Amino acid sequence: MDAKKIELSHGSGGLKTRRLIEELFAREFDNPLLAPLNDQAIFGPLSGRLAFTTDSYVVTPLCFPGANIGKLAVCGTVNDLAVGGARPKYLSASFIIEEGMEIGELRGIVRSMAKTAQEAGVEIVTGDTKVVERGKGDRLYINTAGIGVIDEGLELDPTRIKPGDAIILSGTIGDHAIAVLTEREGIELETEIKSDCAALHKMIAKMLEATGKGNEIKAMRDATRGGVATVLTEFAEASKTSLLILEEAVPIKESVRGACELLGFDPLYLANEGKIVAIVGKERAEEVLQIMKNDQYGRDAAIIGSVESDPVGKIILETTIGNRRPLEMLSGEQLPRIC
Amino acid sequence: MDAKKIELSHGSGGLKTRRLIEELFAREFDNPLLAPLNDQAIFGPLSGRLAFTTDSYVVTPLCFPGANIGKLAVCGTVNDLAVGGARPKYLSASFIIEEGMEIGELRGIVRSMAKTAQEAGVEIVTGDTKVVERGKGDRLYINTAGIGVIDEGLELDPTRIKPGDAIILSGTIGDHAIAVLTEREGIELETEIKSDCAALHKMIAKMLEATGKGNEIKAMRDATRGGVATVLTEFAEASKTSLLILEEAVPIKESVRGACELLGFDPLYLANEGKIVAIVGKERAEEVLQIMKNDQYGRDAAIIGSVESDPVGKIILETTIGNRRPLEMLSGEQLPRIC
Repeated sequence: MDAKKIELSHGSGGLKTRRLIEELFAREFDNPLLAPLNDQAIFGPLSGRLAFTTDSYVVTPLCFPGANIGKLAVCGTVNDLAVGGARPKYLSASFIIEEGMEIGELRGIVRSMAKTAQEAGVEIVTGDTKVVERGKGDRLYINTAGIGVIDEGLELDPTRIKPGDAIILSGTIGDHAIAVLTEREGIELETEIKSDCAALHKMIAKMLEATGKGNEIKAMRDATRGGVATVLTEFAEASKTSLLILEEAVPIKESVRGACELLGFDPLYLANEGKIVAIVGKERAEEVLQIMKNDQYGRDAAIIGSVESDPVGKIILETTIGNRRPLEMLSGEQLPRIC
Repeated sequence: MDAKKIELSHGSGGLKTRRLIEELFAREFDNPLLAPLNDQAIFGPLSGRLAFTTDSYVVTPLCFPGANIGKLAVCGTVNDLAVGGARPKYLSASFIIEEGMEIGELRGIVRSMAKTAQEAGVEIVTGDTKVVERGKGDRLYINTAGIGVIDEGLELDPTRIKPGDAIILSGTIGDHAIAVLTEREGIELETEIKSDCAALHKMIAKMLEATGKGNEIKAMRDATRGGVATVLTEFAEASKTSLLILEEAVPIKESVRGACELLGFDPLYLANEGKIVAIVGKERAEEVLQIMKNDQYGRDAAIIGSVESDPVGKIILETTIGNRRPLEMLSGEQLPRIC
């Protein structure tokens, strides 16, 4: 490509758009479904029910310890499919680029998306590029949508959550939010905190495989914006149960806990990008926990509480000193543009 | 909703996000697949090959004669599926909203999307909402992705284009671009020009049905950014043929022609949002043309030229006075943010 920076003409739909697509996107995402560069990718048939999801990513800064907006855009959509019980297959990728963005920086992010997709075993098969004038964006926003296939008989549904079920969290909380925040604000901590951004579908597949179609895994969700507290509230409301959380059982890195105390954040509300909450029938909980612990992304997994019958629709946090207090959904805004 | 304007907290993932989703998006898009408000929609199985497409819409202004960004986001993605031979089924919708946008205006646009989707017979089944700070967006960007199903045996592929085939254009060109431009710049024309924004899948289905699996329709594409000239170039290059276009056969409204002369645009490069170019085997061309003319969105359809064998990969325009000149792909930028 001759240009070093993105110009409005890269969004014209003409020659410059085509060169950008051919020399950047198609080259990095290289796969036979994308290669014809038609306005749609054609594949299948796919047997089984399908899951379909979308997310736009507006995180700032674009790069932060442990990940960048591109890796995030792939992992986030892969995870949204996986927590629905689907095996992620195909992604779309759509870029809204601000005029003036360095093409070198864009290439780095696109390359990271390609690498993440390859490692995850998903293909980016269709896409779109738009350019907006200076001051009408923030260098780069990415949308990914994804399609996955669900095995027959599998039913993940929070309405199936029952008192007695165990609540499992796949690892430490708050890492992503603190990593983005410290990078954004230039805060230096003693220990660098990295985003937990990761594609969790392989771990989830092992969990589902082990419990088979008995469906002892009732529901799963990734704890992104709004944090673990928001996911738990949604589960409690959908199932008309109460979730009791033991504060001391919730995995958190000392460095993240310290940063939260310093900055005044409650880590239960902070976004994660590589953590799921799973509600599992009591009998299989230990087995599922072990499977998670044996996976690279679930090493710090823990049972953090149990499902109770009341107060209906509420989360109760039992603090380290034994007090109990209700945990509400996030009501304001803790950290904008975290994903 | 209590708030009148979008605040950063509407993108927090917490309570305010949920209220916005429940009271605006879920209410307007109302359908059983969206209703659980999970991070993914689950449906199917779908039999047949699938088409998958995505587009982000950044048009400015948000509303213009004949359509708005919401209607555009539905029609554009429906058309991208349909020109691949797919019956559009499910859409995702993802919103990047600038802080301070009037919720009333957003509701109007969302309602327009819902109405367009309903008329088109597609369902918006999953979505996402992000909010960016003032000055980091332009009120609203929308991404839609779509899934459609392709009938067995159907093969639309520009490599199947052969000399002798007819080139059919479904109606007048330039309407969308001129409608957006005149609204954006406050230009008053004698006759108001409306965007041609429309979902064309029903007309396309009739065209495909009539020609059956003989596949006498070789390829179709909607002539959006880059205009008819860009689509034709892509066809010529993919099929290693030459396309001869008769300028006087190209349908164009007098008012659009006048505006183009006034403003210095070549209408063959202007974006349309309700027009397709179809390459059809000579024997069936008249029949396909009649089917198009009988549809509300194809009334002005015309055979605008024919496929020749050389110069390979080139478009030749025969002007009204009989001169022939090559037509290149759009090399610069005519009109930014037209879709």
